[in-house]
Amino acid sequence: MIDRSALAMELEETWHREIPLAAAMGVVVDGYDGHTLTVRAPLDANRNVHGTAFAGSLYSTCVLTGWGATWLAWRENDLTGQIVVADSTIQYRKAVAGDLVCRCTLNAEAVAAAVQEFRASGRAKLALSCAVDAGDRRAVTFMGTYVAQAAHH
Amino acid sequence: MIDRSALAMELEETWHREIPLAAAMGVVVDGYDGHTLTVRAPLDANRNVHGTAFAGSLYSTCVLTGWGATWLAWRENDLTGQIVVADSTIQYRKAVAGDLVCRCTLNAEAVAAAVQEFRASGRAKLALSCAVDAGDRRAVTFMGTYVAQAAHH
Repeated sequence: MIDRSALAMELEETWHREIPLAAAMGVVVDGYDGHTLTVRAPLDANRNVHGTAFAGSLYSTCVLTGWGATWLAWRENDLTGQIVVADSTIQYRKAVAGDLVCRCTLNAEAVAAAVQEFRASGRAKLALSCAVDAGDRRAVTFMGTYVAQAAHH
Repeated sequence: MIDRSALAMELEETWHREIPLAAAMGVVVDGYDGHTLTVRAPLDANRNVHGTAFAGSLYSTCVLTGWGATWLAWRENDLTGQIVVADSTIQYRKAVAGDLVCRCTLNAEAVAAAVQEFRASGRAKLALSCAVDAGDRRAVTFMGTYVAQAAHH
């Protein structure tokens, strides 16, 4: 039985211990149900010159959420390896005037294919998307491609 | 006569005063010659779980550099207005194991067209690119579209 709340806590602790910017942003894992990872960062530490969320903070929250969702999928499949983002696109449609809340839902078939590729070759790519809403409207859409690589591969 | 070093100092002070994440990253303006803006952030505050530059810090350095280059072009043309990034793409090709140094060179014709559009309509879009090198090789390529909007427009 996978203890998802322990995994989510380990993810958050890893971010705060290993990534100074994640600590400065105050990112926390808001929830993880095995499908969707939700990450939150407070507005105050992440505001811009206009008093709304800084584009770099929105991006960083998204890139961490995507990385975290991939890391969690790897751990749930008993895999380890180095995970890095290779490229990404982000669109800003509305200003975010409250906490930055980012959600990432991995596609189960894409994860299964990537896990199979990783087990066979020690390397896999996974494309995913994240979203941040403002009120009930989409504010930010992020698409990223992550690469997982086995250690010493 | 434009005092470019005073403008560059005002830009850096604005970032540190108004954007907590920029202060946490320690971004400084390394140089501005009227064409190319160079921005630097120290590795230590911006490292990731692998000990190299965090993807979110690289992106934030790029998005600030692009914003700063646009802000400087506006100031040099005696324009004011709100500048925001609308969308962007970033590619990570090599890890950055030292300071994050981002360069943005605006295309003079694109700036002239955007300034003309802004003067006519109070709104303009400007597409630009930024780059971060690792040693003598390109590590990161960023492309962003910024929107400038006149106040009370």
